[in-house]
Amino acid sequence: MAKLIECVPNFSEGRDAHVVELIEGSIRGVEGVLFLGSEMDSSHNRSVMTFAGTPSCVAEAAFAAVKKASELIDMNRHRGEHPRIGATDVVPLIPLSGVSMEECVALSEEIAKRISDELGIPTYLYERSARRPERRNLADIRKGEYEGLRKAVLSEESRRPDFGGPALHPTAGATVIGARLLLVAYNIYLDTPDVSVAKRIAGKIRERDGGLPGVKALGFLIKEKNMAQVSINLTDLSKCGVSEVYGKVAEEAAKEGTEVAESEIVGLVPVSEFIGIAMQKLKLMEFDRNQVIESRLLDEMTEGRDE
Amino acid sequence: MAKLIECVPNFSEGRDAHVVELIEGSIRGVEGVLFLGSEMDSSHNRSVMTFAGTPSCVAEAAFAAVKKASELIDMNRHRGEHPRIGATDVVPLIPLSGVSMEECVALSEEIAKRISDELGIPTYLYERSARRPERRNLADIRKGEYEGLRKAVLSEESRRPDFGGPALHPTAGATVIGARLLLVAYNIYLDTPDVSVAKRIAGKIRERDGGLPGVKALGFLIKEKNMAQVSINLTDLSKCGVSEVYGKVAEEAAKEGTEVAESEIVGLVPVSEFIGIAMQKLKLMEFDRNQVIESRLLDEMTEGRDE
Repeated sequence: MAKLIECVPNFSEGRDAHVVELIEGSIRGVEGVLFLGSEMDSSHNRSVMTFAGTPSCVAEAAFAAVKKASELIDMNRHRGEHPRIGATDVVPLIPLSGVSMEECVALSEEIAKRISDELGIPTYLYERSARRPERRNLADIRKGEYEGLRKAVLSEESRRPDFGGPALHPTAGATVIGARLLLVAYNIYLDTPDVSVAKRIAGKIRERDGGLPGVKALGFLIKEKNMAQVSINLTDLSKCGVSEVYGKVAEEAAKEGTEVAESEIVGLVPVSEFIGIAMQKLKLMEFDRNQVIESRLLDEMTEGRDE
Repeated sequence: MAKLIECVPNFSEGRDAHVVELIEGSIRGVEGVLFLGSEMDSSHNRSVMTFAGTPSCVAEAAFAAVKKASELIDMNRHRGEHPRIGATDVVPLIPLSGVSMEECVALSEEIAKRISDELGIPTYLYERSARRPERRNLADIRKGEYEGLRKAVLSEESRRPDFGGPALHPTAGATVIGARLLLVAYNIYLDTPDVSVAKRIAGKIRERDGGLPGVKALGFLIKEKNMAQVSINLTDLSKCGVSEVYGKVAEEAAKEGTEVAESEIVGLVPVSEFIGIAMQKLKLMEFDRNQVIESRLLDEMTEGRDE
């Protein structure tokens, strides 16, 4: 099976389209990169790019983007609502196929070291790559943001970067890198405008409150539809996928005297989620992911590209 | 969306592995070809290869394979159970994505003409590419096989090739080329060893007897499982897919006092089949094929390869 990793770097520029284009260009310029999308957010003054490729290709493109962002963004002038500590704020690496989490962790360490060594930008390892439990959560690393962290690294041992530093880069700040699982954003609309029902169901299904593993959930009222919505993040599909969470929400909705009206998957989802649903529906005893034409062709195309 | 075509050529050699490997090599040697599989059948003395690629890549590889087979196979010495008229017997072209049936038909004509012009092997157009209704079915073109057709082309106007001829190639015979839809092989096992139930259900669902569009079906007893099996070919997924035929068989099984025990998809299936099932199960109002990571990546990889 081909080795494919997804990378979703966040940059501290969401207003100057020219700067965003130049960073995007540095990623697209790496041979073999599959560029999947770029989003600018002007109130957050932040942009998010998504690309994929083999491990060596992703490592090269991530480095190129961090380098380009460090040349174009000055954190001393950056203002925006979203918390951030660097020109390239965070670089998540996500195993897509044929790659273990361990390999992604190793790759994140390699990239983090190179950014520190060659660009003089200190780096932190987070999520699965974290070397201390208190660095698993991005929010904890980012505490105080660029302005606060700049001082904290000099006085607090516990805030020092994993690579480089302790002083932050004078304009590019610091960058957080790490491996994590694929996250799927999934919204379930209920056949009621009563937001309290969605909030109660969200409370029942979220992991934090003893619900389903890897599930984060909140209840909202979506005015355009006049429907209550359970907004869900699935953070570990191997423990709870789209089908399982749908089943649980449908069950809880019935107890509340309502039902699921419709649902929507926001963004990307791996084919394996749908294979599971189809296997159940069709009572398929066996089915290999490589029987899906698109998966098979993708594997053939990436085969031998990276070992 | 990327333009991708599948090609499934059949060659009149299923015993000499060396010959089969050389033909396979001629396909693999074409830049960009995604080689998906090769199967030899010694009793049929026939091999079937599956590959995919952009239109120009498929045209090149199909021609290369026909050329190689014509150098290695002598129809005057060929014996085997399966009907055949040439060293390369038939070359089906199947639109996979971003390609219309019309484009596949045009491509088949181009390949058929080139084989005739450059290799002196007369060609017939079949299925969607057929220029006369009596040439839609492969069996009709192949009537009399190599030995009979060799004589018939000289005496019967109606048997003459679409390109080249009328005389067949002295050793490679003739080749049939044409565009057709993707075919999915799907077996449904019933919770009964009574083959008559499977035969009756097959009769209810097959198009020929007024059943579902594009469905071919037969009833068998599968001894290893001691279960009756409805063996199905879906020849037009846009009219009847895996989910629809499953539903109908389940319904008919219930009328017979039994039920579906399990089912199996033999070989490849497009992701769209599973998207339909998931949309229904999850009440998804909208879902784009490109939200499936594997489809999206495949598109990115093939983008701009062929226009």
